[in-house]
Amino acid sequence: MEVEKSSGMSLTAKPWLTINGQQFYSRLLVGIEQYDSPVQIREILEATESQVFITTFDLESTRSSILLSDLACELPIQSYIWVGTTSFARSAKDALTTARLLQQSLGIQIIKLDVRTQENFPSNAETISVARELLAEGLAVLPFIWPDHHDALELERLGCSAIRLMAAPVGSGRGLANANIIAPIIPQLRIPVIIEGGLATATDVSQAMELGADAVLINTALVKARNPLLMARAMKWAVEAGYLAYLAGRMPVG
Amino acid sequence: MEVEKSSGMSLTAKPWLTINGQQFYSRLLVGIEQYDSPVQIREILEATESQVFITTFDLESTRSSILLSDLACELPIQSYIWVGTTSFARSAKDALTTARLLQQSLGIQIIKLDVRTQENFPSNAETISVARELLAEGLAVLPFIWPDHHDALELERLGCSAIRLMAAPVGSGRGLANANIIAPIIPQLRIPVIIEGGLATATDVSQAMELGADAVLINTALVKARNPLLMARAMKWAVEAGYLAYLAGRMPVG
Repeated sequence: MEVEKSSGMSLTAKPWLTINGQQFYSRLLVGIEQYDSPVQIREILEATESQVFITTFDLESTRSSILLSDLACELPIQSYIWVGTTSFARSAKDALTTARLLQQSLGIQIIKLDVRTQENFPSNAETISVARELLAEGLAVLPFIWPDHHDALELERLGCSAIRLMAAPVGSGRGLANANIIAPIIPQLRIPVIIEGGLATATDVSQAMELGADAVLINTALVKARNPLLMARAMKWAVEAGYLAYLAGRMPVG
Repeated sequence: MEVEKSSGMSLTAKPWLTINGQQFYSRLLVGIEQYDSPVQIREILEATESQVFITTFDLESTRSSILLSDLACELPIQSYIWVGTTSFARSAKDALTTARLLQQSLGIQIIKLDVRTQENFPSNAETISVARELLAEGLAVLPFIWPDHHDALELERLGCSAIRLMAAPVGSGRGLANANIIAPIIPQLRIPVIIEGGLATATDVSQAMELGADAVLINTALVKARNPLLMARAMKWAVEAGYLAYLAGRMPVG
């Protein structure tokens, strides 16, 4: 049947991002730095069918950390695409240090770059400055910024692999608060756009994909859902629904 | 894995509505009175995996109609749950006449009752009056109303099988315009609630399910999408995503 070809297939037929030959098919990225156990992380990654394993170091050691060796007993971490994140860093210096540690100790080549202030908001200027350094060191960079089209274009010009645009403050659960700002930026970029921050539920994720995002990243939405695994599965379908609706082209508003 | 049990299964494990022993599992109802060919109708029903076959008569014969015999050559219509609709009626009298014709000529026992004005808005008062008559004649009734909780409770008391609440004007594509009015009505009803009217895209459908709807009904969203079949498939996942997210329980807004 024709529908099967154009729907089921379209999501997996070709990757939305390729870095160093590693192909990203799943359009759902999941932060896993807030979980307490390897079992939880395995269950969440399985339920979302995410392909990416995001890891980090907490330079201040204020947060619990799960040993990679324990994780490796629970899930085949080597079969995931490894991405390092600087999400715990609260300064450009810490972000740089974290990224370099991830590269040197784990061989990570792809950095989900977050340079956030003490208030946990991204600093676009510092993100651009750190991105420039990491790119010069040969790393692939996925920077997280306030949705500003000048900054997004600058990061694309520098050679970032994709841009992560903030939908709403991280962990706020406020959904697509910045939808009207994000919408016109997406068509200006040639590199993929990931929408992230504040996405709380299936409807938010579907809306992000309908805006034209190539992928979404979720985290607290699962950690703080009453049933994280059920929400994880909901998110998987929400990505599919929103992406197919985007491709399908909605009816005009009457 | 636990997730499989609680997600995939939860949607199909038990019907959300049972009428005369006929069990409704799919939570996606699709109007099919706007298509030109039996092939289109088959493709749409297959893509949405809807179980319900909605048919009607146009008393004024102003709209093209597809012969049932032609449809029966294209899809196994007898394996669907048959529901008759009065959606073309623009008066209580025409709605009654249509419902009785559907019962007498096709043996239909379930009426999707629409009593709309010339402006194509539901008339709650006339809907209640026609529902009372049809119920007295032994039909099962699924009435469509403006989201008014008194009227919804009255229709429940009369013995309707489910209530269809208007999200936005039919065919408008305006989405969940009435979300704030619908949300508090749903928990007051013991019978299932279908949200319908104006749902244009995957995000609208996901949001309707997250409000706590038992099912949604779509129509123009598919007919007027750039690619109806792709949108049909998107809607299938959107129902699943929204329903699972509702069950999962979203994080609080921070």
